[in-house]
Amino acid sequence: MALATPYLMFVGDAPDQLAAKVAIGVVHWRPDWCVGQLRLAGCKADLGIPDMTIADAVKAGCKTMVIGVANRGGVIPDNWVGVIVEAIEAGMDVAAGLHRRLRDVPAIAEAAARHGRTLTDARHPSRDFDVASGQARAGRRILTVGTDVSVGKMFTSLAIEREMTARGMNADFRATGQTGIFIAGDGASVDAVVADFIAGAAEWLTPANDPDHWDVVEGQGSLFHASYSGVTLGLIHGSRPHALVLCHDAARREMRGTPGVPVPTLEDCIAVNERMARMFEPDATVVGVSVNTSSMDDARAQAYLAETAGRLGLPVVDAVRTGVAPIVDAIEKL
Amino acid sequence: MALATPYLMFVGDAPDQLAAKVAIGVVHWRPDWCVGQLRLAGCKADLGIPDMTIADAVKAGCKTMVIGVANRGGVIPDNWVGVIVEAIEAGMDVAAGLHRRLRDVPAIAEAAARHGRTLTDARHPSRDFDVASGQARAGRRILTVGTDVSVGKMFTSLAIEREMTARGMNADFRATGQTGIFIAGDGASVDAVVADFIAGAAEWLTPANDPDHWDVVEGQGSLFHASYSGVTLGLIHGSRPHALVLCHDAARREMRGTPGVPVPTLEDCIAVNERMARMFEPDATVVGVSVNTSSMDDARAQAYLAETAGRLGLPVVDAVRTGVAPIVDAIEKL
Repeated sequence: MALATPYLMFVGDAPDQLAAKVAIGVVHWRPDWCVGQLRLAGCKADLGIPDMTIADAVKAGCKTMVIGVANRGGVIPDNWVGVIVEAIEAGMDVAAGLHRRLRDVPAIAEAAARHGRTLTDARHPSRDFDVASGQARAGRRILTVGTDVSVGKMFTSLAIEREMTARGMNADFRATGQTGIFIAGDGASVDAVVADFIAGAAEWLTPANDPDHWDVVEGQGSLFHASYSGVTLGLIHGSRPHALVLCHDAARREMRGTPGVPVPTLEDCIAVNERMARMFEPDATVVGVSVNTSSMDDARAQAYLAETAGRLGLPVVDAVRTGVAPIVDAIEKL
Repeated sequence: MALATPYLMFVGDAPDQLAAKVAIGVVHWRPDWCVGQLRLAGCKADLGIPDMTIADAVKAGCKTMVIGVANRGGVIPDNWVGVIVEAIEAGMDVAAGLHRRLRDVPAIAEAAARHGRTLTDARHPSRDFDVASGQARAGRRILTVGTDVSVGKMFTSLAIEREMTARGMNADFRATGQTGIFIAGDGASVDAVVADFIAGAAEWLTPANDPDHWDVVEGQGSLFHASYSGVTLGLIHGSRPHALVLCHDAARREMRGTPGVPVPTLEDCIAVNERMARMFEPDATVVGVSVNTSSMDDARAQAYLAETAGRLGLPVVDAVRTGVAPIVDAIEKL
């Protein structure tokens, strides 16, 4: 997969902003790629970019229509199919991150075949991966890990890439989930590959590179999450990070999706992630912590971040509230 | 999947005994289920059970023909297809553990559909699994783990089940790989499911049970294997073992498939497996070590086992040479 840019963002008939969160993320991190939005009747979401028809978008140079909206069950409703076919007929590729594949909708598959356009289902692996080689390779790598799922690993990774690039460092974001893939224009949904190939997909995503180049790898799951820990460990062992950044949500008490299971302490999470990463990269180190403090007012958040930094002896930031500069300082010192 | 027994073991034109190792394993552990073998011209393997034609096997009550032979690339050669179709036409189901699926060979798929027979591809998931719930459940569970892959986890699990059953304990072997699935008659190839569902497949395999019932779960991979550690961790977190048995090959120096990577120490392997298992089952304990000492003469092996047991303070056995009674003693004491 390598998505052609720029994008027309399809928001469909999203009932609220939350349903369009994939599209919102892409617009936030890649505003230059998102030329316009296509909204259907009844759409309650707004990406804050120009409304366009398919014809407008083609005229503006859009190469791919990105389905940036989730709906119940991940299906592709009938009232989207006509617009998707129209985009294909107008010369655009189409990319989606739904459970249901674009290519499994006959009208869409036929239109793509007829017009030679590419359909990308970012939730489904588009290539076969090898079993991981387990071999060391050149280049430097950063991986975000989490106390839990949905604690800001993608956001933190992108903020780190942006800060590193702003400082003139040689860095690339490496995407492992659907929104990240739209933002990077490429990537591997490591949670969607066959289990034997998790680490192999992560190796493919982070190939040998220049000695001063940093891959900033979007983490998935958590070593402490009963449902997804296998994905996380395969990603750690395949991407072989030199630096780990621990992400956390200060308001989270129970692991998301497994009621009654408490969130681990930051100390435990740092120790276990370092232990697993050091199996193959002996110097792997958690260089900082990125906390979602949106549940707190500013004074309380600043006190929490300062107290946690003091306790752990590490930079502790909120990627939204404070930015990630102290973490990139620590990366520069490695 | 739930295979109908007894079996006719298909060995094809295996060039040597090693090529028939799946069939040999099934005959070893389930002799009563293996009524006969079907060998083609040129077959150099012998399971030591009666040779039978398809007609003989049907007369003897065989319900499933098991393809117990591996060949280069895991394909289904043309000279097997005729025999497989003949077995289906004679009323048998067919089970295989090849990379190529039985159902992807048109002649086989058509015969099965026409005669209403079941095709089982043990390497491929035959059902959809849920995401793991991460919830505690009744019943007790043992999982074999390893310093590396291919160190005797299936053999040790089956030896433990046999010893427990012989003592009147309530135990069932739970299979996670193709040979194990033929031996158990059911199971889940956890390394073949989509990564998000590894732990979910392991939960399905080890449902709530009587308080005195033991699932003896066949382990896969190793937490220390760069290629497969994700499968192993998902299996640990999904099966939630109370007891772990560490398997090891005394002759192994490098991790199989990742040249240059040393095998971990038993001490490290015990510590890391216990740490990961205790996230959800706080009393999880490595209760013994099962070592393949086939590279040593008997005196050296006995000395090695005794020295290792003294160093670790745990029962250390060779499941082939000494049996697993000391490990089952430890399980009984839990």
